[in-house]
Amino acid sequence: MRDDYVHGYSEEEANRLKDQANTLANLMHDDTKYPADSLVLEAGCGVGAQTIMLAKNSPQAHITSIDISQESIKQARDLIEKNGFKNVEFQTADLFNLPFEDESFDHVFVCFVLEHLQDPIAALKSLKRVLKKGGSITVIEGDHGSCYFYPETKEAVKAWNCLIECQTGFDCNPMIGREIYPLLKNSGFKDVQVTPKIVYVDSSKPELVEGFNKKTIIAMVEGVKDQAIASGLIDAESWEKGIKDLYKTTEPDGVFFYNFFKGKGIK
Amino acid sequence: MRDDYVHGYSEEEANRLKDQANTLANLMHDDTKYPADSLVLEAGCGVGAQTIMLAKNSPQAHITSIDISQESIKQARDLIEKNGFKNVEFQTADLFNLPFEDESFDHVFVCFVLEHLQDPIAALKSLKRVLKKGGSITVIEGDHGSCYFYPETKEAVKAWNCLIECQTGFDCNPMIGREIYPLLKNSGFKDVQVTPKIVYVDSSKPELVEGFNKKTIIAMVEGVKDQAIASGLIDAESWEKGIKDLYKTTEPDGVFFYNFFKGKGIK
Repeated sequence: MRDDYVHGYSEEEANRLKDQANTLANLMHDDTKYPADSLVLEAGCGVGAQTIMLAKNSPQAHITSIDISQESIKQARDLIEKNGFKNVEFQTADLFNLPFEDESFDHVFVCFVLEHLQDPIAALKSLKRVLKKGGSITVIEGDHGSCYFYPETKEAVKAWNCLIECQTGFDCNPMIGREIYPLLKNSGFKDVQVTPKIVYVDSSKPELVEGFNKKTIIAMVEGVKDQAIASGLIDAESWEKGIKDLYKTTEPDGVFFYNFFKGKGIK
Repeated sequence: MRDDYVHGYSEEEANRLKDQANTLANLMHDDTKYPADSLVLEAGCGVGAQTIMLAKNSPQAHITSIDISQESIKQARDLIEKNGFKNVEFQTADLFNLPFEDESFDHVFVCFVLEHLQDPIAALKSLKRVLKKGGSITVIEGDHGSCYFYPETKEAVKAWNCLIECQTGFDCNPMIGREIYPLLKNSGFKDVQVTPKIVYVDSSKPELVEGFNKKTIIAMVEGVKDQAIASGLIDAESWEKGIKDLYKTTEPDGVFFYNFFKGKGIK
């Protein structure tokens, strides 16, 4: 994981993550509601895009949200305060060296974090240490290999693949979603259940065309333009056509498909 | 569409389709139940793999199932009789030249048919002619571009892509699933709604590992072996490794994902 990549360091990136969180909030979070007085650890909260949903859906739980970046913690704290939630404490902490006693938490929540780690099993084992026996871990990740669209052109696929290659180049695994089941099993969790969370968008869903296709997916691809061209993954002309073609998926005949995975396991 | 390709001409292929229908029946059909006395046209029934589900889920509807192949109709009729259903009539007929008056049916059902047609919009318009105003059309298709798995190796992806290329070579469109929304809209249907039907398989679902990964997906890939090697799409050694690697998706750490689409429109 390189510091110049991790989500949340630019204002633009922070806005993208908030847009994404708003549009996809129900899809991701509706089945995660922690009981009153339960102690919940959110690991890798970033700028708080998911924290706000956790705080909202589990108003009487005590949430501790950590991130390795002090700057992200500051933004997340501002966001939560601005929205009037009182059930979250923030702390700068390293996932691999957690400043908590064994079995400190009833539940652990990790969203869009494992994709950035070179050793996700070590991270899951570290989280398992601070989880009480019988407590749950919830993991959410995307899978960039799940993405397809209509119309599909060679250049649009190439632009999309630039995103995958750029993220992989930063020691990330943008296709980790499909691995949640074996990762949780191989970290020693039991009763593992993984559910695909599907984003299917056609023009009958204009709010998703806007919030997902344009503001999340294409914005994310556009974010690697300079890097993709500079590193020779694609030439400038193909890039322009690729992006233009991706925008065709937002027209009346367009269709877009992406798949997140949500997994739950018990210690 | 070439006669030597269409599903259902070999016994092995017929068995594959029945296995597939059994495993996926609930996923595909549970939300299609036609009312008593309604007149339903099933277009392209093949050997009856879907007919049997229609007959079961809509016991009081009058179903007319057609196919262009007399041999398939014979097999479908045998299957339906053997299972004791009395609510289906069979007829050999051409989808593009239907032997029915305008507005003869209350509902039309088309499953795994459009993928084989060079002009799916012409087919949908032909079906629209025999549908009553206000009646529904239901379309189900797979999308081979939706498939991904873990572990993923170069050879496994290559073997899977051989299936796509072989089917495309027969003037089929194995990635038509994503197009159901524009196809129905552009054929003049209204209130079009498309729902992805997800098959996510990990080792917590042994019946799907068996019925879907092995008996449906890998069996389908294995079916194009001779053609793929003969046409130079892949060498024999890569093929063997690819198939072996696909079987790794059926082991305890394996994961498999495939996506069907079900669309409904109103005349």
